[in-house]
Amino acid sequence: MSRCDEIAALTDDPGKIHRLYLSNAIRQTHDLLDQLARHAELSCRVDAAGNWIGRLPANQPTDRVLMIGSHLDTVPNAGKYDGLLGVLVGLAVAECVGSDRLPFHLDVVGLSEEEGVRFSKPYLGSAALAGRFDPAWFRRKDHQGITMREAITSFGLSPDRLTNARIDPNRVIGFIEPHIEQGPLLRRVDRAVGLVTAIAGQSRLLLRFSGVAGHAGTVPMPFRTDALVMASKWIDLVAQYATQREGLCATVGQLHVQPNVRNVIPGCVELSLDVRDAKDDRRRRAATDLIDMAIRVAREAGGDAEVIEHQQQPAATMDESLSNQLRAAITAVGCGAFDMTSGAGHDSAVLSDVFPTSMLFIRQPVGISHHPDEDVDASDVAIAIEVLHHFVTHFQDTT
Amino acid sequence: MSRCDEIAALTDDPGKIHRLYLSNAIRQTHDLLDQLARHAELSCRVDAAGNWIGRLPANQPTDRVLMIGSHLDTVPNAGKYDGLLGVLVGLAVAECVGSDRLPFHLDVVGLSEEEGVRFSKPYLGSAALAGRFDPAWFRRKDHQGITMREAITSFGLSPDRLTNARIDPNRVIGFIEPHIEQGPLLRRVDRAVGLVTAIAGQSRLLLRFSGVAGHAGTVPMPFRTDALVMASKWIDLVAQYATQREGLCATVGQLHVQPNVRNVIPGCVELSLDVRDAKDDRRRRAATDLIDMAIRVAREAGGDAEVIEHQQQPAATMDESLSNQLRAAITAVGCGAFDMTSGAGHDSAVLSDVFPTSMLFIRQPVGISHHPDEDVDASDVAIAIEVLHHFVTHFQDTT
Repeated sequence: MSRCDEIAALTDDPGKIHRLYLSNAIRQTHDLLDQLARHAELSCRVDAAGNWIGRLPANQPTDRVLMIGSHLDTVPNAGKYDGLLGVLVGLAVAECVGSDRLPFHLDVVGLSEEEGVRFSKPYLGSAALAGRFDPAWFRRKDHQGITMREAITSFGLSPDRLTNARIDPNRVIGFIEPHIEQGPLLRRVDRAVGLVTAIAGQSRLLLRFSGVAGHAGTVPMPFRTDALVMASKWIDLVAQYATQREGLCATVGQLHVQPNVRNVIPGCVELSLDVRDAKDDRRRRAATDLIDMAIRVAREAGGDAEVIEHQQQPAATMDESLSNQLRAAITAVGCGAFDMTSGAGHDSAVLSDVFPTSMLFIRQPVGISHHPDEDVDASDVAIAIEVLHHFVTHFQDTT
Repeated sequence: MSRCDEIAALTDDPGKIHRLYLSNAIRQTHDLLDQLARHAELSCRVDAAGNWIGRLPANQPTDRVLMIGSHLDTVPNAGKYDGLLGVLVGLAVAECVGSDRLPFHLDVVGLSEEEGVRFSKPYLGSAALAGRFDPAWFRRKDHQGITMREAITSFGLSPDRLTNARIDPNRVIGFIEPHIEQGPLLRRVDRAVGLVTAIAGQSRLLLRFSGVAGHAGTVPMPFRTDALVMASKWIDLVAQYATQREGLCATVGQLHVQPNVRNVIPGCVELSLDVRDAKDDRRRRAATDLIDMAIRVAREAGGDAEVIEHQQQPAATMDESLSNQLRAAITAVGCGAFDMTSGAGHDSAVLSDVFPTSMLFIRQPVGISHHPDEDVDASDVAIAIEVLHHFVTHFQDTT
C-alpha cells in the first residue's frame, strides 16, 4: 500500500495523479520499480513499446514464462490503484516466491498504455506483447502534436524494433491480471476477490432522432414532432429492456439536443448507446432490438431515427485451465470463489487472443474508480497476493 | 412586399438580415421610413428610446391617438417579416386613409427593441412607451462592452429624456399590433388573419435530476440510479400531460447531461421547462403538477429532482372593445374571424398593461420564423391592410 502511495506521487500533473504514456512520471515509475525489483533479485527491462518487465528467473533451464501484471498509465486525475495495483501485486508475489524460484520464469509486467489518453488509442502495451501493434499507429499525434513515433524515440526506445516486443505465445504459460473491480459486485456479494471468466463485448452506437424544431409557445402540442420527447420515450425503454435481461448493460451516456434553446422545441437529438454483454449473440440481438425500438418510437411520433455510428468489439473469454487453477487457489486460501464478468475493457481482452489469460478482481470498498477517491482495503490486497502466491507455487502446466 | 425586401437589405450583418437595437441598420431603416412616411404626409420623429413614430394628424383638433405598429429590430440571421411587417402594414393603412384623415391621430409606430438581442433585455421600446422603462437598464452592456446609456447617446438621443417617451395613456384610443403568426394555426384552419385575444403567460423553470454516475460496463442495471433515465421518463410524462390539456404548451428545450461521456452512466441532468397558457391559473397548476411529477419519478428511481430556477410572467389579455371592433372588421371584409392565443411574447403584452391593446396575426405559409426562410403571402398582407383600414375608418371610440 505504501508503494501505491509512493508511485501516486510520481505524476505528470502536480497535485493530481496522472501518469501519461511515455511521460516523465512513467520514467520515474520505471526507475522506482527497477529499484524494488532488483532488491528482490528480479532482472528488469523496458521493451520497445515501453512495457516494464521484471523477471524472477526459473529454478531450472526453461523458456516457459508465467506473467502477472497490469498497466502503469492512468486517466487524468486518477486514483492510486487502477492498473498499478496489479503490477505491485505481481511484484509482491515474486517477492513471496523469493529464492525458492519456480519451474518457469515469473515475469512481473507493467504495461505501458491501457487507457488510451495520450494518443486516443488504448491497449498499446498489450497489443505490442500480443504482436498486434499496427505500425499505422505511429502517425497518431497527442494533444501537443507529438507523433507516437516521436514519443517512443524521445523516451529512448526504437520504434523500428517495436515488433521485438512481441512474446512468442508458445513460451507463455499464461498471463494473470490482478485489478481493482471498478464496480460494486464484490462489495455486494461480500467477497475480497473475484474470478473474471469473461470480458464483456461492446456495441458502441450513435443514434440521431429527427423531429421538427419550432417555437415553444406557438406550436400546439398535437402538432409537434419533438425529437427530445421521442428520444426520452426510447431511453426509458432501453433501461427497461436491459433491466429485464440479466448480464446485459445498456447505457445512454451522451446526449446532445439541437438547438438546445429553452424556448425552442428540439428538432434533433444525437445520443450514444453503449451495450455490453459477456455473450456476443445476446449483445448483438440487444443492439438490433434497441435500434428497431428507436425507429418505431420515432416513426410513431411522426419523426425518424437513424444509426450514424456502429462499432463493436467481441467478448473475450478467459482461459479455462488458468481459471480453474485460480479458482482452486481462491478456495485453498479460505475464500469463497465468485465468478464474474468484467463489464469494463482490460488488456486481458487483447492478450486472451494469443495467450492463456485470466483476471483476478479485487474488491473496491467505495465503488469509485477513475477518480482520486478510488480505494482498496489492504486486507483484500493481502488476500489477492496470497491467492496468487498459492496459484504460482501450485501451478500445474497442463499445456 | 417590396418595402420589406428593401429594408431587409439594410443589415448589420452583410449577407444576412439583422437589425440590432440602435445600430447603423436601424438608422438607415428610420431614414427610409421617414422618406416613405413624409411622402404620405405623415410627420415623423424618433423618441428618446429610439422608437420611430410617423403621425397622420387627425382631421379635427384632438389629443386622441390610435397607434398601429410593431418592432423594427430582429434576431440575428432573421427573416424579412417578424416585426417589420406590422410597421409597414400600419404605414399602408395610413396611406389608404390618406387625405381623408380620421377623427383621431393615427400613429404608425416602429418600436426600437423587442427581441432583446443587444442587451439581453427584450421589450425596451414598448416599456418606454408604457412608462415602464427602468433606469437601471442603462448600465447593461452589449457584447462589445458598450452600455445602453452609451448606445443611446451614440445614436444621438438623450438617455436623460427617456421618460419623455412615455405616452399619456389617457390620450391613447388603442394600440394595434399586426404581426406574422410564427406558428402553424392559421395555416391549419385556413385563415389569412387571426384575432389575438390573449398572450400566454409563461413559467420558465430549470430542474436538476440527480442520480449516481458510474461505469457503463461495471454497474449492473438493477444497481443504477441513472439521472438521464429519470429525466427521460419525466419528459415523456410532460408531453403527455400537456397534450391532454388543450391550450397548454410544455416544452423541454434545453438539456445538459453530466458528465455526458459515452461510457459513463449519467449522474446529473439539468434541463429547462417552458410552460405556457393563456390562463394563468391553469399554467401555474401545470407547473406545480410537473414539478411534483419530476420529484416522484426521481425518488421512485432512487434519485432526486429539484427546481433550481423558477420565473414566471402572467398572461396578457387584449382589450375587449378593440378586439370586438377588429373582429367586426375581419368579418366585414369577407373573412371568417378566428380568435387565438399568442404563445409567443410580444410588445403588446407590455403595452396591454397601460393601453387598450390588440393584435392581428397574419398567416405564415411555411411555418418558419426567426429564420431567413420566413415567408408571408402578399394576398394575406393585403387582407390585413384591408381589415385595419376598415377598422380605423369605422372605429367607434367607446372609452
